[in-house]
Amino acid sequence: MGKEQLIIKDKEQTVIIAEFAIFPTSEGASVSRFVKEAVRVIEDSGLKSVTGGMSTVIEAPDLASLFRVIGQTDEALVKMGAKRIYVDLRIDHRLDKKATIESKLKAIGKS
Amino acid sequence: MGKEQLIIKDKEQTVIIAEFAIFPTSEGASVSRFVKEAVRVIEDSGLKSVTGGMSTVIEAPDLASLFRVIGQTDEALVKMGAKRIYVDLRIDHRLDKKATIESKLKAIGKS
Amino acid sequence: MGKEQLIIKDKEQTVIIAEFAIFPTSEGASVSRFVKEAVRVIEDSGLKSVTGGMSTVIEAPDLASLFRVIGQTDEALVKMGAKRIYVDLRIDHRLDKKATIESKLKAIGKS
Amino acid sequence: MGKEQLIIKDKEQTVIIAEFAIFPTSEGASVSRFVKEAVRVIEDSGLKSVTGGMSTVIEAPDLASLFRVIGQTDEALVKMGAKRIYVDLRIDHRLDKKATIESKLKAIGKS
Repeated sequence: MGKEQLIIKDKEQTVIIAEFAIFPTSEGASVSRFVKEAVRVIEDSGLKSVTGGMSTVIEAPDLASLFRVIGQTDEALVKMGAKRIYVDLRIDHRLDKKATIESKLKAIGKS
Repeated sequence: MGKEQLIIKDKEQTVIIAEFAIFPTSEGASVSRFVKEAVRVIEDSGLKSVTGGMSTVIEAPDLASLFRVIGQTDEALVKMGAKRIYVDLRIDHRLDKKATIESKLKAIGKS
Repeated sequence: MGKEQLIIKDKEQTVIIAEFAIFPTSEGASVSRFVKEAVRVIEDSGLKSVTGGMSTVIEAPDLASLFRVIGQTDEALVKMGAKRIYVDLRIDHRLDKKATIESKLKAIGKS
Repeated sequence: MGKEQLIIKDKEQTVIIAEFAIFPTSEGASVSRFVKEAVRVIEDSGLKSVTGGMSTVIEAPDLASLFRVIGQTDEALVKMGAKRIYVDLRIDHRLDKKATIESKLKAIGKS
């Protein structure tokens, strides 16, 4: 199954939209090489994501899928030698209707 | 002075990039009318902003400018009748170089 | 193995300190019955935790243990009928030394 | 007016409870001297506060009072030489009743 199909499948099942940032606080002021690697790991996961100036928004079919990719970004930063890592996460778990990044932006006139 | 000029001026002075969400927790599951109004207030402030699926990223020349617009969004939600309001804010205050949303995205290969 | 022993074991292995809040945004302004249940789930997990006015601080031996208990609090709120759930999480993952809630407070003169 | 009176006055008027962390990401893994100074600034403000393992919870009569003290902690870290500062803030603004840290903890059986 191709990457495009995976994304379509995920979008149909989406119940979780999360906003997520991870960065080391131990490696000096410039940490873009770590953030770049974390974004690469998120994009390789097959989950739909949009990276902005402060974080990445992720659509996931369930919490387990979201936590798996967050764990993988943390592992990636550990492998790169980060000695202290900060994770900042917000989750919007909606049960009353299927929501996506696109449907949320549309609801506020932003798509 | 036009809006475009204001934005250019702000970008030159930018030292603060913030990510900000505000929503009522008292008004039921659907709160897009409140979020829409908060985004309108942010955009009317003249500060550069980008709204995503979970929050709005704002460039501000200083903390006072940022807190002013956050206060205005809170006032707007109070006027709309929200009985309990949640604010979620992260600030990246960089003193070693002028950073913008664009420069941050460029640093991770995303602009 | 008793609960006390479990806690001691966890503290020895602690590499993760997290701060975590979960609440419905769909159930009106008063949500203490949901928060109370989430705190009960955290305390039943065997992980050391301290609940404050806005969130609960948790010590975990690894990310998987932390994510397991967060997933359980989310499930608990779903079972209680919450239609939209918000999760707010920060993680401090330290690899340079074993940190605990107590050691962090001691370092800033607060224990 | 003494400090104790100020605190009592603030508690009567409290509508804002906030959870706040500030730390440099540019100064290496150990930042307790910066956090200690930020906590000192908060405590000198006269606002009621409780410092935990990951953040400080503050009671404020209004947003302006809260933002003033956050601005002061940021200034303090700049003076100490921090080159990049991260601020993490959540605000619970309640209009349906006067809430305090104590009343929130009591509502979930934790005071």
